[in-house]
Amino acid sequence: MKLWDKGYNINKEIEKFTVGDDYLLDQKLLYWDCIGSIAHAMMLNKIGIIKDDELNKIKKTLFEIVDLDKQGKFKIKQEDEDSHTAIENYLINKLSDTGKKIHTARSRNDQVLVNLKLYMKKELFEIQELVLIFCKTLLEFAKKNNVVFPGYTHMQKAMPSTVALWSGSFIESMLDNFKILKNAFEIIDSCPLGSAAGYGVSLDIDRKYVSDLLGFSKVQNNVLYVQNSRGKNEALVLSSLMNIMLDLNKIASDLILFSMHEFGYFELPKEFCTGSSIMPQKKNPDVLELLRAKSKVVESLYFQVTGIVQNLQSGYNRDFQLTKKPLIDGIEITKVSLNIINEVFECLKVNKENCEKALTKEIFATDIAYEYVKEGMTFRDAYKKIAKELDNIQVKDVYKYISNKRHIGAAGNLGLDGIELQIKNNLKSLNSKKKQFQSVMDDLHVN
Amino acid sequence: MKLWDKGYNINKEIEKFTVGDDYLLDQKLLYWDCIGSIAHAMMLNKIGIIKDDELNKIKKTLFEIVDLDKQGKFKIKQEDEDSHTAIENYLINKLSDTGKKIHTARSRNDQVLVNLKLYMKKELFEIQELVLIFCKTLLEFAKKNNVVFPGYTHMQKAMPSTVALWSGSFIESMLDNFKILKNAFEIIDSCPLGSAAGYGVSLDIDRKYVSDLLGFSKVQNNVLYVQNSRGKNEALVLSSLMNIMLDLNKIASDLILFSMHEFGYFELPKEFCTGSSIMPQKKNPDVLELLRAKSKVVESLYFQVTGIVQNLQSGYNRDFQLTKKPLIDGIEITKVSLNIINEVFECLKVNKENCEKALTKEIFATDIAYEYVKEGMTFRDAYKKIAKELDNIQVKDVYKYISNKRHIGAAGNLGLDGIELQIKNNLKSLNSKKKQFQSVMDDLHVN
Amino acid sequence: MKLWDKGYNINKEIEKFTVGDDYLLDQKLLYWDCIGSIAHAMMLNKIGIIKDDELNKIKKTLFEIVDLDKQGKFKIKQEDEDSHTAIENYLINKLSDTGKKIHTARSRNDQVLVNLKLYMKKELFEIQELVLIFCKTLLEFAKKNNVVFPGYTHMQKAMPSTVALWSGSFIESMLDNFKILKNAFEIIDSCPLGSAAGYGVSLDIDRKYVSDLLGFSKVQNNVLYVQNSRGKNEALVLSSLMNIMLDLNKIASDLILFSMHEFGYFELPKEFCTGSSIMPQKKNPDVLELLRAKSKVVESLYFQVTGIVQNLQSGYNRDFQLTKKPLIDGIEITKVSLNIINEVFECLKVNKENCEKALTKEIFATDIAYEYVKEGMTFRDAYKKIAKELDNIQVKDVYKYISNKRHIGAAGNLGLDGIELQIKNNLKSLNSKKKQFQSVMDDLHVN
Amino acid sequence: MKLWDKGYNINKEIEKFTVGDDYLLDQKLLYWDCIGSIAHAMMLNKIGIIKDDELNKIKKTLFEIVDLDKQGKFKIKQEDEDSHTAIENYLINKLSDTGKKIHTARSRNDQVLVNLKLYMKKELFEIQELVLIFCKTLLEFAKKNNVVFPGYTHMQKAMPSTVALWSGSFIESMLDNFKILKNAFEIIDSCPLGSAAGYGVSLDIDRKYVSDLLGFSKVQNNVLYVQNSRGKNEALVLSSLMNIMLDLNKIASDLILFSMHEFGYFELPKEFCTGSSIMPQKKNPDVLELLRAKSKVVESLYFQVTGIVQNLQSGYNRDFQLTKKPLIDGIEITKVSLNIINEVFECLKVNKENCEKALTKEIFATDIAYEYVKEGMTFRDAYKKIAKELDNIQVKDVYKYISNKRHIGAAGNLGLDGIELQIKNNLKSLNSKKKQFQSVMDDLHVN
Repeated sequence: MKLWDKGYNINKEIEKFTVGDDYLLDQKLLYWDCIGSIAHAMMLNKIGIIKDDELNKIKKTLFEIVDLDKQGKFKIKQEDEDSHTAIENYLINKLSDTGKKIHTARSRNDQVLVNLKLYMKKELFEIQELVLIFCKTLLEFAKKNNVVFPGYTHMQKAMPSTVALWSGSFIESMLDNFKILKNAFEIIDSCPLGSAAGYGVSLDIDRKYVSDLLGFSKVQNNVLYVQNSRGKNEALVLSSLMNIMLDLNKIASDLILFSMHEFGYFELPKEFCTGSSIMPQKKNPDVLELLRAKSKVVESLYFQVTGIVQNLQSGYNRDFQLTKKPLIDGIEITKVSLNIINEVFECLKVNKENCEKALTKEIFATDIAYEYVKEGMTFRDAYKKIAKELDNIQVKDVYKYISNKRHIGAAGNLGLDGIELQIKNNLKSLNSKKKQFQSVMDDLHVN
Repeated sequence: MKLWDKGYNINKEIEKFTVGDDYLLDQKLLYWDCIGSIAHAMMLNKIGIIKDDELNKIKKTLFEIVDLDKQGKFKIKQEDEDSHTAIENYLINKLSDTGKKIHTARSRNDQVLVNLKLYMKKELFEIQELVLIFCKTLLEFAKKNNVVFPGYTHMQKAMPSTVALWSGSFIESMLDNFKILKNAFEIIDSCPLGSAAGYGVSLDIDRKYVSDLLGFSKVQNNVLYVQNSRGKNEALVLSSLMNIMLDLNKIASDLILFSMHEFGYFELPKEFCTGSSIMPQKKNPDVLELLRAKSKVVESLYFQVTGIVQNLQSGYNRDFQLTKKPLIDGIEITKVSLNIINEVFECLKVNKENCEKALTKEIFATDIAYEYVKEGMTFRDAYKKIAKELDNIQVKDVYKYISNKRHIGAAGNLGLDGIELQIKNNLKSLNSKKKQFQSVMDDLHVN
Repeated sequence: MKLWDKGYNINKEIEKFTVGDDYLLDQKLLYWDCIGSIAHAMMLNKIGIIKDDELNKIKKTLFEIVDLDKQGKFKIKQEDEDSHTAIENYLINKLSDTGKKIHTARSRNDQVLVNLKLYMKKELFEIQELVLIFCKTLLEFAKKNNVVFPGYTHMQKAMPSTVALWSGSFIESMLDNFKILKNAFEIIDSCPLGSAAGYGVSLDIDRKYVSDLLGFSKVQNNVLYVQNSRGKNEALVLSSLMNIMLDLNKIASDLILFSMHEFGYFELPKEFCTGSSIMPQKKNPDVLELLRAKSKVVESLYFQVTGIVQNLQSGYNRDFQLTKKPLIDGIEITKVSLNIINEVFECLKVNKENCEKALTKEIFATDIAYEYVKEGMTFRDAYKKIAKELDNIQVKDVYKYISNKRHIGAAGNLGLDGIELQIKNNLKSLNSKKKQFQSVMDDLHVN
Repeated sequence: MKLWDKGYNINKEIEKFTVGDDYLLDQKLLYWDCIGSIAHAMMLNKIGIIKDDELNKIKKTLFEIVDLDKQGKFKIKQEDEDSHTAIENYLINKLSDTGKKIHTARSRNDQVLVNLKLYMKKELFEIQELVLIFCKTLLEFAKKNNVVFPGYTHMQKAMPSTVALWSGSFIESMLDNFKILKNAFEIIDSCPLGSAAGYGVSLDIDRKYVSDLLGFSKVQNNVLYVQNSRGKNEALVLSSLMNIMLDLNKIASDLILFSMHEFGYFELPKEFCTGSSIMPQKKNPDVLELLRAKSKVVESLYFQVTGIVQNLQSGYNRDFQLTKKPLIDGIEITKVSLNIINEVFECLKVNKENCEKALTKEIFATDIAYEYVKEGMTFRDAYKKIAKELDNIQVKDVYKYISNKRHIGAAGNLGLDGIELQIKNNLKSLNSKKKQFQSVMDDLHVN
C-alpha cells in the first residue's frame, strides 16, 4: 500500500514509469534507511511521541529488516515505490499502531537524504582508502624502478626522465585528490533529518540529538537548504571522483602507449590481456582501454546530475530521483577502477633495456645548453648554439646526469620519503575516522 | 572457452572488469547476432567455404538459439565474454568441425557492428512510429481544444493564443524530428560485414550478397571506415533522439507550469499523480517531472559516447565497448517517454474557464496597436500610444479576435488538415519499409 | 533609443549584463538583418501598409547600412541592445514616419530567427563545400600513397593495411557527414518571418511571399513552433558539425601518433611545426594537437545550447540569446579546422621505408590462417595452429598480398573511382544550390 | 622573433591557427607573467646566474612592461605567439645579453602555470569576497522580509514557509560554496616554477626561494605532476564555480516564477526589466533569464576543460592551450553574475499581501495532522483523517503558526545570528589573506 493511499489506484504504466528502477537502487540503500529510522525513532521517543517499549519494538523490527536484507530476503517491490514505503509497511504489518508512528515528523525526502549522506560518507571512506592504497603501490613501483626513459612533451621525446619521476607524479596528484575528497566529505557531513518536506514541522523535534546519534558532525540547519542541496551533494561527490578518474585516464593512456611494441617500456602480464577472435597473434591491453574510457562515463554522470537540477524551483522536485543512479554508478565505477589500476601496478613490468635505449642523444640538448650557461654563456645563445650542434651531442653516464638533477621535485630528488610519511599519516587519520563512524553505527544496535 | 584461448587463464578480476555488463547487454542483441550469423554462413556457403548440409545444420542450430533465447533459456555467461563467443561455442559443441567454420572471414567487431545496426534499424522504426502516433494524439487534442489562453514570452503573458496553436507547435516539431530520424536511419543503413578486424580478409567474400540477405540498402565500403564509424553511429542516433527529448522536456515544462493551481489551465487525472508521505493534500505531477528530467539523461548519454570516442586512433579500440550501454539506454528511455507522453495527452483535461479567464486585457495591446496601423498610424507611434492606454483596453469577442488571425500558421489558420495528411503519408511509407524489413528477416528462415 | 522606450532608463549594470556581447555578435549578422528587413518591407508594401515610394526609400536606406557595414562604419552600440534596434533607429532617423513602419507585423525574435537561418544556410553551404574539398584532397593523397603499413587495433599492430585504405576511410566518413549537413540544412530551410512574438499578428500578412523573396523552401507554419525551434536549430547544426570534428579528431590523433619518431610513417613539413623555448631539438605538431582539442570545444558548445534550452516553457525566453555565440563559434571553429586539415594533407609526407619496415611478420598471421582455410582446415583450427607458429611466418611479396584483398572495400579494391564520382556529383549539386541562393539575394537588390 | 627561431618561417595559416586568441588572452595574464619573471630573476641572481646589476635592470624593465600594460601600450602581437615571447623579446631588445639570461632554467609552460596560478588565486579571493557580500545582502533581505508565503514541492503548494526561510537557504548554500572555493584555493596554492618542460633542469635552482617570493604556501614538488596538473587545476576551479552558478540558477528560477503575474510574490523594479519591440505592455525579467542560462555556460566550460585533457599522455600537450579561455570565461561569468544577483536583491521588493493571500488552507494539512499526533493519534491515522477533511481546515494566526516552528533551522528558528557571525569571520580571515598576498606582491617592487 502506498503511504499516500487515498482509495484509488494509480495508472499502472504511470506507476512503472515514475518508480523506474528506484526500488532496485533503494535495495542498496536499505540498510541506511533502517539505521536512519532507528535514530529517528529514538528521537521521537526522547520527545515523547513514542514510548520506550514501542521504541524497542521498532528497533527490533528494523534490525529484523537489516538481517533479512543481508540474506537477500527483504525485496522492495515495484508497487512499494521505494524502501521507505516498504519499511513503513513492514513496521505497520508487524506492530500495527506502533508502526504508524514511525513517519511522524519526517518525509520520505528526509529519508532519501539521510540514506544518501550516510551512504556517501561510507563510500567516501572506502574511496579515500583505495586512493591511499594506490599511492602506496605507486610508491613501491617508483622505488623499484629508478630506470631512465624519455620524458615526452607534445608526444615527442623532450628530456631524460625516470620511471620513478613518472610514477611519483601520480602519487602527488592522488594525494591532492585525497584532499578534495576529504573536503567533499566535510561538506556532506551534516544531518538532514528534520527538514521534513523542506519546511520543518510544528513539533518540537530534537535535530541535534538525531544528528549525534548518526555521527554527523553537525545539523544541516536551514530546512529548505536541506532539500535544495539534493543534487548539489551528488554533483560535489562526482566532481571529486572525476579528479581520480582523470588521473587514471592519463595513467592508462601512458601505459597503452608505452606498452606498444614500438616503445616497449612497459609490459602487462599476459593474464591481464585478452586476445582476438580472428588474429592469432594479438595480446590486447583491453583492461587499460576500458579504464581509459571510464573517466568519460563518470564525467557524463556528473553532467547528468548538474543537468537535472538546473532550472528547477526551490523545494523537492521529482527530477531529483534521477540523480540517485548516477551517484551510485559513479561511486562504483571509481572503486572498481582504483582496484583494477592497483592490481595492474602490482604486476606491471618495466623493460629496462628498452627504456634506456630510447634515450637518444638529442634529448640531452637542453642539459648541454645548461653546461654552456654554467660557463657564462647566456641561455638564449646557448640554446641557439646547440640547435646547430644536435648531431654532435655526446651522451655519457645517463644515470649520473639524472641523479645530478637535485633541485626539489627533480628526478634526483623526488622526496619519496616525505611522500611516504604523508600517505601513512593520511591513512592513520582516515582509519581513526572510519572506526569512529563504525562505533557510532554499532551504538545504535545497543538497547 | 574464449575464442582466442591460448592455454592460460585470464586473471579473474581483470576478466570481470573487461567483460563488465557486456554479456548482459548482448542478451538484448543475441537475436541479431544469430540473424547476422545466418547470413554470414549463407555467404560462406556461396563462396564454397561451407557445404550445403553444413549450412543447413548451422542455420538450424542458430534458430535453436533464437528459440532458446525467446524462452529465456540461452544465457550468456560472464566467462563467455559476449554473445559471439556463446554462439560459436554452442555451434562447435553441437556441430564440432562445422561449427569451427562459422568465424571464417569475420571478427567479433564485425558482429557487434551488424548486431547494433540491425538493432538500431529495428528500434528506429519503432521510434519513428511512436513519434507519428504521438503526432496523431496531439492532433486530436488540438482539434478538441480550440480554447483561448495566454501565450507567454519571458514567462510573462504576451499575446492571446489557443491550446490548439500550442499543441500544433509540438506536432510540427515532431514531424521535423521524424525527418531527422529518417536521415539517421539512412546513414546507418549499410552493411558492415566483411570488414573483419577493419582491414578486410584475403578471401573472396561476397559482401554485396550478405548485405542483400540482411536487407541493408548498401555495403559500407571502406573496411576501416566500418570500424571507425563505431561510436559515430551511436552518437548520430542519440543526437537524433535528443531532438525528441528536447520537445518532451518542453511539453512537460509547460504542463507542470500550466497545471499549477495558480494557472489551472490543464489538469492531470488523479490516476496519473502521486501523493506525499507527509502532506495529506498533495497531488503531484511526478510523471511530468521525470519526463522533464529524462532529456538530461539522454543528453549525457550522447556526451558519454562522443567523450569515449575522441582522441582514439583509427581501428577498433576496446573503449568502444562502453558505447553500447548508452545507445541501448537512450533508445529505451526515448521509447518509454514517448509512450508515457502519449498516454498523458490521451487523458489530459483542459480547464476552459481558467484558460479564458486568464486572457487579461493588457494581452491585447499589440492587436489594438494594429487597429491603429490599419487606420494609418505608423506602428511605432501606435505602440507608444497603447503603452500609455493599457488600462483602457476593451476586450470584446476573444474567439473572433483569434479566428481573425488568418495568416499562415496563426491561431485562425493552423493548417491542421495538411498536417494530418503529412502524418498519414509518413505512417504509410514507414509501415511499408517496416514490412519490407520484416520480410527480409522472414526470408532468412526459409531453407 | 530602445524600441520599447517608456520614458525611463534601465539600470546601467543591468543593461550591460543583459546586452552582453550580443551587440558584437549581431555585427556578424547585420547583413542578414538588412536582407530580411528588405523582404519584410516588400511584403508590407504588397499588403498595403507601406507605399511604393516608402518601400524604395526603405530599401535604399537598408542598402546604405549594408554598404556602411562593409566599410566597418556601421557600429552597433551597447545601448542599441542589438542590430534590430540599430537598424530601426537608423531608418527612423533618416526617414522619420516611414521608418516607424518597418516594425509592423514583426518582432525582434522574428528577426533574430530569420538572421540566424539565413546565416546558417550560407555557412552550411560553405562547410559542405569545405567537406567536399577535403574529400578531394584525401582522394589525391590516397591515390598518391598506395603504401603498405600496419593496421592497428587496440593500438597494437593487427593486420597489413595501406595508407590509401586509411585515407579512404576518412573520405567515406566525410561523405556521410555531408549527408548529415544536407539534412540539417533542409530542416532549417523554412521561413520564420510572421511568427511575430510567437503568436502571429492580426494583420493579413503574406508569409509565403516573404518566404519566396528570401529563397526559403517553405514557410515554417505554426507560429509558436517558430519560436520554440530556437535553440533546436542551433543544436541540430552543432551536432552535425560534431560529426566533422570527430573525424578531424581521429585524423589528428592518427597523425600525431604516426609521426612520432618511434613510428615515422608520416612527416609534417617543418613550416607546420613549432619549437620549444627551452629544448633546442624540438619540432612539435602543435597544429595537430590543437585540431585534436577543437572537437571538445564544439562538443561543449552543443551542450551549452541543449543545456540552455531545457526546462524552459514554450515561447521566447531570453535564455535563447546565449545560444547565438556557441552557434557562431562552432561554425567558425569547424571552418578553420577544415581549412587547416586540408592544408596539412596537401603537404603531408609519407615515409615509405618506415611504413614498409613496420610490417613485421606476426601481422600476417590471419592471412596465413586463411591459406589453411582455403586448403580445407576449419578457421578455428587454423587459428590455433598459427598461434603456435608465429615465429615461422614467412612474408613474401607484401604488395601482392594486399592487392589480392579484392572484396568490396578492401585494400585491393577501394572503389576510389566511384567515390570520386560521388564527390563530383555532390559538388555539382551543391554549387547549383549556392548559385540559386545567391541569385535570390541579388534579386532583392533590384528595384 | 620566436624564442625557438631556427632560421625559417612558419606557414602563416598554421601560425594563425596555433596562436589562436592566445595572444589576446595573455594580455590578461601579462601582469602575472612579469611578476613571475621578477621572482624567477631574483632566484637566478641568488644562485649566481644573474648579477646584481643585471637583476636590477631586469626588474626595472619588467616593471616598465607592467606600466606600459596599465596604459594599454604593451600589445602582444600574433607573431609573438604569447606573452612570454613578447616579454623576452622586450628584455633582449632593451638589455641585450642580460635579457638573454631570463629564460635560463624555465620553460614557457612553467610560465603559463605560474601566471594561471597567480591569476586564479587573485580571482578566487575576489569571488570568495563576492560570495560573502552576497550572503550579507541575502541576510539583510531575510531580516527585512519575515513574510509568510507558500513553500512548494513538485511545483505545488506544500507547506507554509517564509521569505526569510527561503532567503536563508541560499545563504547557507553559499557558505558551503565558500568552503569549496577555499579548498580549491589550497590545492592550487603551490609553486610550479622550476618544473621547466616537466622534467626539471640540471642547474641547482632554488625552488623554495622563488615559491616564497611569490607567496605560495609550498613548492609543487614532482616536476612532471606540475605539468600534468594543467587542466586539472582549471577543472577544479570551474567545478567549484559551478556550485555558485547552480545556486544562482535556482534563485533566478524562483524569482522568475514568483514574480509572474500569477504569483506576484516578488517584484523587480522597472529599471531592471526590459520591454518588447512589439508588445507595448511587456516588462520582462531578462536579467534573471540570462542569469539562469549562465550556469549552463559555466557547466559547458568545465566540460570543455575535462574533455580536452582526457586521453592525453603525460607531459605538456598543446591541447592544454585551449583550457585557458574556458577558465577565464568561467571566472568572469561567475563574477559578473554574483555582482548582478547582489544588485537584484538590493532592490527586490516583496509583495506582502500577495504572499500572505497565497497561503490557502490546504497548506496547513500536515500541521493539523501534528495537532492530532500531539493528542495521541498515530501519524499515519492522522494523515488519513485530514486527507478527508481538507475542506474543513481553519486557518487562524498564520504568523503564530510559523513562529511556533522552533526546531533548529525551521522558520521560527533560522539561526540568522550564528550565520551573521560566520559571514563576518569568513570575511575577516579572507581579508587578512588577501592583504598578505598583496604585501607579497608589493615586496617584489622593492629593490
